[in-house]
Amino acid sequence: MSISLIALDWGTTSLRAYLIGDDGVIAARREGGPGIMRIEGGAFEAALRGFCGDWLDAHPQAVLMACGMIGSKQGLIEAPYCLCPAGAAQLAAHVVRVTLSDGRQLAIVPGVSTVDASTGVPDVMRGEETQIVGAVPPIGNHVVVLPGTHSKWAWVEDGAIKGFASFMTGEVYAALMGHTILGRLMASDAAHDAASFSRGVAYGLEAPQQFLHRIFSARTLGLFGTLESAALPSYLSGLLIGAEIGGAHSLHPVTGRIILLGSANLTARYAEGMKAANLATVAGAPEAAACGLTRLAKA
Amino acid sequence: MSISLIALDWGTTSLRAYLIGDDGVIAARREGGPGIMRIEGGAFEAALRGFCGDWLDAHPQAVLMACGMIGSKQGLIEAPYCLCPAGAAQLAAHVVRVTLSDGRQLAIVPGVSTVDASTGVPDVMRGEETQIVGAVPPIGNHVVVLPGTHSKWAWVEDGAIKGFASFMTGEVYAALMGHTILGRLMASDAAHDAASFSRGVAYGLEAPQQFLHRIFSARTLGLFGTLESAALPSYLSGLLIGAEIGGAHSLHPVTGRIILLGSANLTARYAEGMKAANLATVAGAPEAAACGLTRLAKA
Repeated sequence: MSISLIALDWGTTSLRAYLIGDDGVIAARREGGPGIMRIEGGAFEAALRGFCGDWLDAHPQAVLMACGMIGSKQGLIEAPYCLCPAGAAQLAAHVVRVTLSDGRQLAIVPGVSTVDASTGVPDVMRGEETQIVGAVPPIGNHVVVLPGTHSKWAWVEDGAIKGFASFMTGEVYAALMGHTILGRLMASDAAHDAASFSRGVAYGLEAPQQFLHRIFSARTLGLFGTLESAALPSYLSGLLIGAEIGGAHSLHPVTGRIILLGSANLTARYAEGMKAANLATVAGAPEAAACGLTRLAKA
Repeated sequence: MSISLIALDWGTTSLRAYLIGDDGVIAARREGGPGIMRIEGGAFEAALRGFCGDWLDAHPQAVLMACGMIGSKQGLIEAPYCLCPAGAAQLAAHVVRVTLSDGRQLAIVPGVSTVDASTGVPDVMRGEETQIVGAVPPIGNHVVVLPGTHSKWAWVEDGAIKGFASFMTGEVYAALMGHTILGRLMASDAAHDAASFSRGVAYGLEAPQQFLHRIFSARTLGLFGTLESAALPSYLSGLLIGAEIGGAHSLHPVTGRIILLGSANLTARYAEGMKAANLATVAGAPEAAACGLTRLAKA
C-alpha cells in the first residue's frame, strides 16, 4: 500500500499529522506539534519540516493537505470562509494552495461561515468543518456538536453543513473561574464531582435565559455551605453546559441522535448534559479530522 | 439644627460618610474614603477616624450607623443576613452593634438573603437593602434595580423586600473584555457608541437563553467589519444588559415603573435597555444609602 495523503490538523494550540494510505486508512499518526500561536515570525514551513520532514521526504508524491487555523489571517495564508451550505464538494472547491519553498503544494481547507436568517448575524468555524465532513454519513439529517473553547453546533443535511452556531462555553468558564468572584471560593484543581456537575446541568438547562443570574449560585451555594469548595468547579461546568444545551435547543429543533466530537473527557460531560435534556448522543469518529481530510482530498 | 446621625456607606471599594440632621436632611457629605478591600490588618476603626474623626469628635451624641460590606466576614464584624421579606423594621431589629475603642457604638446594618421558592437556591445582597429602603415609598409594589458588578433586581411590597435576584452582568462584562477573545478585537478605551449599544441591547434581549452563543457576535461582527473596533465595547455592554433585562423579566413579572438606583452613566444605559423591553423607569433618590440609613436609625 502506498501513502497518498499527508493530512495536517493544524490549530491554534496544536498540530497533528497523519499518513493516509490509498485505501483511506491511517498508516501513521503524530501528535503534539506546534499550534500556530506557538510559531513565531511566520516560520510555518520550518515548523512543518521540523515536525514531519521525514514524511515529506519519504512520500514526495503524496498530497499535502491541512485544515484549521493555519488557514486563518494569523496562519500561513488566509483561506476565505466558504458560506453555508457547505459539504465536501464546496470545501474542496475552495481549497487554497500554497507553494512551499521546495516546490511542493500545500492545500489548505477553508473555514465555513453562516449568516443567521432572522438576525443577519454571521458565525464562523475553522477546522471543525473538516471534522464534521469526516464524521457524518453522506445521507440524512444530523446534528454534530463539538464541545470546546468555542463549542459548535452544526446542522448537517446529506453531508452538507446547512447552518451552525458557536457557544463560548469553554472560554467563558475559564474567564469566570480565573477572573471573577466565582473562582475565589473554588478549589480549581478539584477532581470531577459527578453529583454537583449534574446539579449544575439541571439548573443551567432549566432556565438558560437567566444565565447571568444563575451563575451567581456558584457563589451563594458555596457561601451557605450547600456545595463544598471542591464541588463548585464541576457545578459551574455543568451549569454552563446546561445553559449551552438549552440555548442550542431553542435555536434549532434537535431531533435524532447528536454526534459528539471531541476529547473523551469533554464529550462524556456533554453526553450527560444531553441526557438531562432528553437528547440522545453517539460518539463520532475519534479521528474525524483525518477522515475529513481524506474525504476532501478525494473530492 | 443638631446632627443626630453619622451615616456610613462602606462598601468593598469605597467609603462615603454623611452628617444627617434631626430633620433627616443631609448636612454634609464626604466621598472617596477607603473601601474594606483597601484596609489592611483589620484597621477599620483607624480608617474611619482618618476619614471622619473630626465629625466623630464634633458630634459625640450622634448615632453612628453603617451599611455595606463592612458588615461582611471580610469587614469589621459579620452582621448575618436577614431573610426576606425584610423591610426597615426587620433590618433595624437585626442591626449588629460594635463598641469602638473609645466606647462609642457603631451600628451595622445586616445584608439580606432570599431563597428561590422553586429551586431552593439562595441569593444575597449587602448594602443594596439600605439603598432600597431609602428609595421606595412605604406603600405599594415596586421593582428596584441597582445596576453594577452584581446587579440586583428587588421586588418590594409596602416597603419590605419580598425577593430579589443578582445578575453578574458587570463582572462578566469585565471578564469577557479582559480575558476572552472578544476583548482582543476591541478598543477598550472607546467612547460610548449609542447606536451599537442599542443594537446589542436588542440582540441580547431578544433571546437571553442564547447568551453563550450571542456574545460570540461581538467577535464575528468585528471580524466581518460590520462593527468597528471602537463600537464593540458598547455593543457587548448592550448585549449583556439586554440579556439581564430579558432574564429578569422571565424570573418575575415586572409591572409599573422600575426604580433605577446607581451612577448616572450606568442608570442611563439601563433606562435605555428597559425602554427597549417596554419597561418604564424612574431615577431613584441619588443618595438612597443615606436616606436608608436615616430611616433605619429612626426605626
